[in-house]
Amino acid sequence: MPGRSCETRTRVRYAETDGQRVAHHAAYLVWFELGRADLLRACGVDYNALEDRGLCFVVVEAQVRYLAPARYDDLVTIRTTLESLRSREMVVVYSVLRESTVLATGQTRLALVDRTGRATALPDDLSRALSGPEPPERGDAIISPIA
Amino acid sequence: MPGRSCETRTRVRYAETDGQRVAHHAAYLVWFELGRADLLRACGVDYNALEDRGLCFVVVEAQVRYLAPARYDDLVTIRTTLESLRSREMVVVYSVLRESTVLATGQTRLALVDRTGRATALPDDLSRALSGPEPPERGDAIISPIA
Amino acid sequence: MPGRSCETRTRVRYAETDGQRVAHHAAYLVWFELGRADLLRACGVDYNALEDRGLCFVVVEAQVRYLAPARYDDLVTIRTTLESLRSREMVVVYSVLRESTVLATGQTRLALVDRTGRATALPDDLSRALSGPEPPERGDAIISPIA
Amino acid sequence: MPGRSCETRTRVRYAETDGQRVAHHAAYLVWFELGRADLLRACGVDYNALEDRGLCFVVVEAQVRYLAPARYDDLVTIRTTLESLRSREMVVVYSVLRESTVLATGQTRLALVDRTGRATALPDDLSRALSGPEPPERGDAIISPIA
Repeated sequence: MPGRSCETRTRVRYAETDGQRVAHHAAYLVWFELGRADLLRACGVDYNALEDRGLCFVVVEAQVRYLAPARYDDLVTIRTTLESLRSREMVVVYSVLRESTVLATGQTRLALVDRTGRATALPDDLSRALSGPEPPERGDAIISPIA
Repeated sequence: MPGRSCETRTRVRYAETDGQRVAHHAAYLVWFELGRADLLRACGVDYNALEDRGLCFVVVEAQVRYLAPARYDDLVTIRTTLESLRSREMVVVYSVLRESTVLATGQTRLALVDRTGRATALPDDLSRALSGPEPPERGDAIISPIA
Repeated sequence: MPGRSCETRTRVRYAETDGQRVAHHAAYLVWFELGRADLLRACGVDYNALEDRGLCFVVVEAQVRYLAPARYDDLVTIRTTLESLRSREMVVVYSVLRESTVLATGQTRLALVDRTGRATALPDDLSRALSGPEPPERGDAIISPIA
Repeated sequence: MPGRSCETRTRVRYAETDGQRVAHHAAYLVWFELGRADLLRACGVDYNALEDRGLCFVVVEAQVRYLAPARYDDLVTIRTTLESLRSREMVVVYSVLRESTVLATGQTRLALVDRTGRATALPDDLSRALSGPEPPERGDAIISPIA
């Protein structure tokens, strides 16, 4: 399961730039979330269906290291990897690249919560989906087994 | 009821600026929403309670005219006026000012919808709150009867 | 030149949804901008290079009609068409679709301004690029001559 | 200088909420930035003037711990403290509260960069402003010397 990974591409939006003419630092958390969505999709998890069951992932900790700025219209790649998965928590790590330049790295710790907002154990199907064998390519995601 | 109005103040956030070093044009819809929230609050409407009843206002049309740019950290005032109120629709108009300079004007048409997303008539209490006599000052809003 | 058009695809981001579990109405202006970026790219205009010359397009008016909500993760298509082009102004129209359902339509009026913020006439190269014959497909954009 | 601190109040905007009906986790970085802006203002630093001199602060690292959700319209307080100041870097720490409940804590590491994007030492006036004696109350900020 560690090694579960995918790549997502997005262009820096004008609305994401700030007065410094580079992507605002909060945009990276949104890009990480795009990566996470593709990772779940790649594992066969339908996030809307999960929410319909009254479950959702909440970010309990986030960390970003900014190494180089991204300009408007840059095509950036988000590499997302499921770092660890436990009964009540998963850690996902990210790097954002423009071609071979690493613009930022980061990680988020996530908990699964129920409708009342209480942390809950991952149901078996979700746990299996996230820890099963490397899935085939799906949707927008490009599954790249990272050595 | 036409004439129901309030003023909201906010500072232009760095995250709201774009590569032109001015507030991004989508930020104005968010500011209009701040004004609308204060207008509802001023009328004694608790929006969270409304959503808990399964009702919410949805924007069905929005229009903005941009007259002058707003820079980072500018203190802007949003003047919000309930232009018209009908059983299933209300029209709210806005102007955004920096001191006496009008930066933008706009309007939104809103419908009330239920949990299924269907347009629904305003319940009596809501209708009364929005069309009653000018309310006393409340919360963040400054009620200014506009002639 | 009327008929110059392109299509852009994007997924509704979680950060774009609001408490109603649908895309926030301000997100549509950002999607329109994505469409406009692809339209310029399709016409061979490098927007960063334009800004480096001290020129930029500013939105002077925007209008959106919201017809149906977009949910998280929906794959939406933005159809962008250059409606009219004059010396100092261009009008661009948009429709946002999920498969064949039109979620929203809208238009923006844009002016070209120089470093001082003054409206300026389109330089010849830009004017030619925007009004020339239908360009070949480029970048992310799918050029679709709309009858 | 450690102990330099201020408080900023803001209401959770509807546009900041997400499908979970709570403030999106990226919004906290924007709130931290509001706090930072008030901290600079409180120290007598005019950020726009700084940018006009070709200098700006860039976030080189950010960290957030999310403890409890913030709902739409909640009035939140951001407590911002200058944790350390060195020639080329400052560390600012934050906590976000709703009344006495801590919703999140975090920190950002910032560098000052010049027009070319290169890290540069703080000019004397800026360094003095940030490390001088506790300033009097100014602008929106409420200076609260934290023991």
